[in-house]
Amino acid sequence: MKSLNIGIIGLGTVGCGVYNVLRAFDEINIKKIAVKNINKKRNIENLDESLLTQDAYEIVNNPEIDVVVEVAGGINPAFELLTAAIKNKKHIVTANKELLAKKGNELFSLAKANNVVILYEAAVAGGIPIIMPIKTILCANKLTKIAAILNGTTNYILTKMAEKDLSYETALKQAQELGYAETDPTGDVEGFDAAYKIAILSTISFNKKVDINKIYREGITKITANDIKSAKELGYKIKLIAMGQVTDDGRIDVRVHPMLVAKKHLLAKVDNATNSIMLSGYPVGDLVLTGAGAGAEPTASSVVGDILVLSSGLEHSQCPVPQAVCNHTEFADQIPIGETYNEYYISINASNNPGVIGLVGTICGKNNINISTIMQKGINTDNTAEIVVITEKSKESDIQNALSDLLKSESIKKIDNLLRVMN
Amino acid sequence: MKSLNIGIIGLGTVGCGVYNVLRAFDEINIKKIAVKNINKKRNIENLDESLLTQDAYEIVNNPEIDVVVEVAGGINPAFELLTAAIKNKKHIVTANKELLAKKGNELFSLAKANNVVILYEAAVAGGIPIIMPIKTILCANKLTKIAAILNGTTNYILTKMAEKDLSYETALKQAQELGYAETDPTGDVEGFDAAYKIAILSTISFNKKVDINKIYREGITKITANDIKSAKELGYKIKLIAMGQVTDDGRIDVRVHPMLVAKKHLLAKVDNATNSIMLSGYPVGDLVLTGAGAGAEPTASSVVGDILVLSSGLEHSQCPVPQAVCNHTEFADQIPIGETYNEYYISINASNNPGVIGLVGTICGKNNINISTIMQKGINTDNTAEIVVITEKSKESDIQNALSDLLKSESIKKIDNLLRVMN
Repeated sequence: MKSLNIGIIGLGTVGCGVYNVLRAFDEINIKKIAVKNINKKRNIENLDESLLTQDAYEIVNNPEIDVVVEVAGGINPAFELLTAAIKNKKHIVTANKELLAKKGNELFSLAKANNVVILYEAAVAGGIPIIMPIKTILCANKLTKIAAILNGTTNYILTKMAEKDLSYETALKQAQELGYAETDPTGDVEGFDAAYKIAILSTISFNKKVDINKIYREGITKITANDIKSAKELGYKIKLIAMGQVTDDGRIDVRVHPMLVAKKHLLAKVDNATNSIMLSGYPVGDLVLTGAGAGAEPTASSVVGDILVLSSGLEHSQCPVPQAVCNHTEFADQIPIGETYNEYYISINASNNPGVIGLVGTICGKNNINISTIMQKGINTDNTAEIVVITEKSKESDIQNALSDLLKSESIKKIDNLLRVMN
Repeated sequence: MKSLNIGIIGLGTVGCGVYNVLRAFDEINIKKIAVKNINKKRNIENLDESLLTQDAYEIVNNPEIDVVVEVAGGINPAFELLTAAIKNKKHIVTANKELLAKKGNELFSLAKANNVVILYEAAVAGGIPIIMPIKTILCANKLTKIAAILNGTTNYILTKMAEKDLSYETALKQAQELGYAETDPTGDVEGFDAAYKIAILSTISFNKKVDINKIYREGITKITANDIKSAKELGYKIKLIAMGQVTDDGRIDVRVHPMLVAKKHLLAKVDNATNSIMLSGYPVGDLVLTGAGAGAEPTASSVVGDILVLSSGLEHSQCPVPQAVCNHTEFADQIPIGETYNEYYISINASNNPGVIGLVGTICGKNNINISTIMQKGINTDNTAEIVVITEKSKESDIQNALSDLLKSESIKKIDNLLRVMN
């Protein structure tokens, strides 16, 4: 391996993990660490405090530093700092999914022009090896589908809701108390974090640039204990699924939303904060990669892995890990959600009338929707009934039309939820 | 990518898969294909028959060829051919697990001396990316444990025995009829194939040479429908597990044997011919990688992946994929089975006497074995009873002593089976 001088931007949970893991590797010299607050107490024994600086430009402009490791997160000032670092011919290792999803195009073009690489294994699914395998050993494949659990917080909340019959609010609160969810949980529970990750993963899997703004995104905040219970009775678990697929007409369908996942599906067996990625293509078939998607240590495995591969590659070549260069030129033609086809779970609150099941069936039929299961779930105290419908594969726009037709009827009080189904 | 000239040795199932997948890659020119019988009908459309030869030395001695792809299998003549190829400075891509497990030391040393690489992703777990990830993105880790289902044939047989209450013999026959098992199934059902694979995987995971002759190996031929049924009642599935682990005293414990795997364990959820590898280490934690472990297409994904990585690496360097060079110098200190500690399932045929459960308990106790479950499974027509014991973690040699003590008693007719347990 080639001896490398690195600078680290950020010394939070992941930064501390990286620092601790790097102790075992003499070839990697940490020259500087940029932090927001130099006086903060950190989870590191014998931290060499002379390395710390509050000015990250001491790293990106430092001629002694070969590789900039960015584990601070966010767009500002990370984008500006990495832009400067790349212009100074430094290789980049980053765990910053938001930055890559929103500014990846600019950064990868700039890196190419400056003959440096950006490695980012830790940006998707923490410790699970996925980015480098797709760019190296799987590169004979035409990948056509990803279905993944990429956010540990939401998987933890959904698991606890199912295990203990909790409401979303109670499960969220417990997750926050245990440190699985942040005080402001929006980034996780509204699906932003998973959307960044599936944007990155789809881009390298399908070799086309995916626009984060065109990704359909729905979080888990509307999932009720009733939905979880109905799903269980029907043989499903509810998971926040990030998916990307190539449609028959060559368009790209990328989205994040909760789904009913059939219990026999391997993704349904992934509980708590664990992440899992199902990747399908020719000739490899279906692969499922499961592991810790977050946390200081698993994330450090990927960050330090990238650094060591870079060091190993630079020993022999000026352009290390050539497969890992992300230089897609074409934008993906992303399909809008209305044009996708899915199986659906619809939960309806209706008057307890004899004709209501017939009404639901008729309106679905008129909108080209075949029903595979319809069940009445019991009568509420206000004499309304809960009706649950599972459909065959239908067009999303037809479903939306059916829902608005249903709401025009006096017998239908409310659509409680609409979820998609994976069998 | 660098344009590469390759020669392929072997055009069976895997060879045909590789040929078909390579059609999509213009940079890779197939110069020659060595086959046993030039006139055999093959599963390839528009095969260029001018490429075929019955003399593999036309490949290994051909100065135009950069890479030799060996997908013939077996030790002879593969060892001799690859030795000649390496001496002629050709890089090697091989799927030959038996060759690497038995002759890897010689071949890797020779490759190092000749400054060429041997890539072998396809030798372990077919299409699952495992060898290259361990050698690249996971290289920051100290890996300490592997537990894996590495043989599709035996997993298929055990799955069908459990699903359909079949005897081993019937399930094997059905697997043979469907092409999942060979006419002579020894290599699969006696665990040889899994032993080759775990030898390779342990060597690269623990960075020490593992001696195939010191791997404890037990196949699935003694598993009965009764064992499967008892396991199910106790909350387990029976799987052929290949495992490797670093013990507390730094020795290496590598073995292949059937195990009762707790139903909640991710490996218990891997059925039919699918393979799965659980890999544990610091800092990554536990990873589980699941996919097709055999078949023309998944195997071709790995073989062609290796070829493309080689091509990509050679564009920039004379020493491509440096992480993938296998140059361990030390031999592992392999622990004999008698010194390992395990939980056990013991199935005993005993006289239907009132004191027999007490007897089993007493003999186990005398041999330092704590029992966690003991159940009588019903009375046979000859007035013997089936007794099933699950032990706490015990030393293998203590268990063997207990079994021989049990057999000294008149009440104990037979030890029907002894299996290890994974919770």
